Amino acid sequence: MIASEIPVLAVLCGANLPPDMAAVEAAAVVRYTDARGLPEALAGADALFVYDFLSTAVPGAWAAADRLRWLHIASAGVDPVLFPELRDSDVVLTNSRGVFDDAIAEYVLGVVLAFAKDFARSLDLQRAGTWRHRESERIAGREVLVIGTGPIGRATARLLRAAGMRVSGAGRRARTGDADFGEVHDSAELPRYLGEYDYVVAVAPLTEQTKGMFDAGAFAAMKPSARFVNVGRGELVVTSDLVAALRGGQLAGAALDVFETEPLPPDSPLWTLPDVLVSPHMSGDFAGWRRTLVEVFAANFRRWTAGEPLQNVVDKRLGYVPSESQGAAG
Amino acid sequence: MIASEIPVLAVLCGANLPPDMAAVEAAAVVRYTDARGLPEALAGADALFVYDFLSTAVPGAWAAADRLRWLHIASAGVDPVLFPELRDSDVVLTNSRGVFDDAIAEYVLGVVLAFAKDFARSLDLQRAGTWRHRESERIAGREVLVIGTGPIGRATARLLRAAGMRVSGAGRRARTGDADFGEVHDSAELPRYLGEYDYVVAVAPLTEQTKGMFDAGAFAAMKPSARFVNVGRGELVVTSDLVAALRGGQLAGAALDVFETEPLPPDSPLWTLPDVLVSPHMSGDFAGWRRTLVEVFAANFRRWTAGEPLQNVVDKRLGYVPSESQGAAG
Repeated sequence: MIASEIPVLAVLCGANLPPDMAAVEAAAVVRYTDARGLPEALAGADALFVYDFLSTAVPGAWAAADRLRWLHIASAGVDPVLFPELRDSDVVLTNSRGVFDDAIAEYVLGVVLAFAKDFARSLDLQRAGTWRHRESERIAGREVLVIGTGPIGRATARLLRAAGMRVSGAGRRARTGDADFGEVHDSAELPRYLGEYDYVVAVAPLTEQTKGMFDAGAFAAMKPSARFVNVGRGELVVTSDLVAALRGGQLAGAALDVFETEPLPPDSPLWTLPDVLVSPHMSGDFAGWRRTLVEVFAANFRRWTAGEPLQNVVDKRLGYVPSESQGAAG
Repeated sequence: MIASEIPVLAVLCGANLPPDMAAVEAAAVVRYTDARGLPEALAGADALFVYDFLSTAVPGAWAAADRLRWLHIASAGVDPVLFPELRDSDVVLTNSRGVFDDAIAEYVLGVVLAFAKDFARSLDLQRAGTWRHRESERIAGREVLVIGTGPIGRATARLLRAAGMRVSGAGRRARTGDADFGEVHDSAELPRYLGEYDYVVAVAPLTEQTKGMFDAGAFAAMKPSARFVNVGRGELVVTSDLVAALRGGQLAGAALDVFETEPLPPDSPLWTLPDVLVSPHMSGDFAGWRRTLVEVFAANFRRWTAGEPLQNVVDKRLGYVPSESQGAAG
């Protein structure tokens, strides 16, 4: 950016405008747009803030991006904007790494306890006015595998361990002595070790390597008493294989916050399968999250206009922010 | 006990016999009985094991206890057997302190997370096939008051703190610097400080002092956003006051595992009030609890026949095992 020019910022947001944009508006020409207006807003824009992070509109409007140098997305996962033309371009991609970590960790601990204490059955019995005593499970000492060793996976591992569980990780590189996970398995070899775990938690980013990693072979390798938790991306899972595994008793339950198609279609068997907990992609969305997302963007925007290194720069080949590089040249 | 005699042990158990009694049966004449046969079983008995810990049959059969010296109950709460004649007698009373601590702590953390993450609404929406995104709450940094500073309260305080919450206690004696609670308030002055807490957890024993401690005045003192959790005894609560407070918006929810009348009567409004979670007195009952209860009794039985000090001796004036005295002469 030439310092003497006022930059042009396109904001993809649909009907809900991002809050607290005054500081950004004071230092840029801001063009708020929905998906339909995106090509027009991108023409001549220096930066794009994808506030509507579930939108799939960016690839189709990309041809209009004639001077874009920076794209920031208000989510941790960057898969909706990581298409080949962006990957091969010089446009810097940043995400909202860090915002959701602890909220998602709490959510995962919550569903683990919901399974162990049989809360869904308690609520169904309550709705039916039925008093029926059951025995419940302990979580202390149970084995958990967290697949994904980024900041969300690390926050999850720390919280589950604090609650008394035994936690391991799976990531791109097998290793021992990790500060949060202890042992980290190679996530390319899931079926080899999945059978050791009572809970399997998916928080990996969606990449070519992770897409469909939870397939029939993975579910067949799990304990029949195991529960599967997905707070990463729906596309990590071959949904039809998950449904078949649940029906076949190859695992004991699943808590799913993300789905291959969102909203989950009305005819999906996941709505009604026993021992499945469905939530609408909300695990990280604590009260105040939208303001926090804008704060993260605004802080990066201030760095960008000041010529300072941006935070949360995505390695576009990997598909996520590498742990080693928290900051990089913007 | 005279060492040369084989002691007579009455076991109040109804239809479900306690498991793993072989070691006890080898060293005593064991009379298994239900409530109806209790007077006959008590006549000439040296000890009574109340395995059916919810039974209210002991006071009515007490006149038949002509040589009883020890009563053990398979629960933490001793209120079903702490009637005046027992209190004024020389019969030693022991309980199952310690068995339920960690399981109940996990249950409390589970319902706290269920409230924060709005799990009940997620499940109701799932049952209706409705996708509706909401924002959720964090639990980290939220203030919790645990009323009851015995081992269950302490396990609960430790686990909630490990999960990031800010925990205080309330007990018979106000103090600071407690290892598990930090600050402990005087539980006789609840309304003075209840308004500081996001979650209020009742785990106190049922005594003359604690009966009905959660009344209209207590609920009026809570934050309208607060949630109340009862894993102690139903009689700690004036149920009609709780119902009125929930209806009046004086608190935001309640998770209730215990009730003034159990099973909870079909016409109780608690079944259907919004933001109330009802469970059937199961918070401590992890898989294996019955064997563990018999192990605790059998270990005390071995001590008793060997003339060693019993564990978990209840102070019959206080109504619980004092923290200071883990063992006492049997």
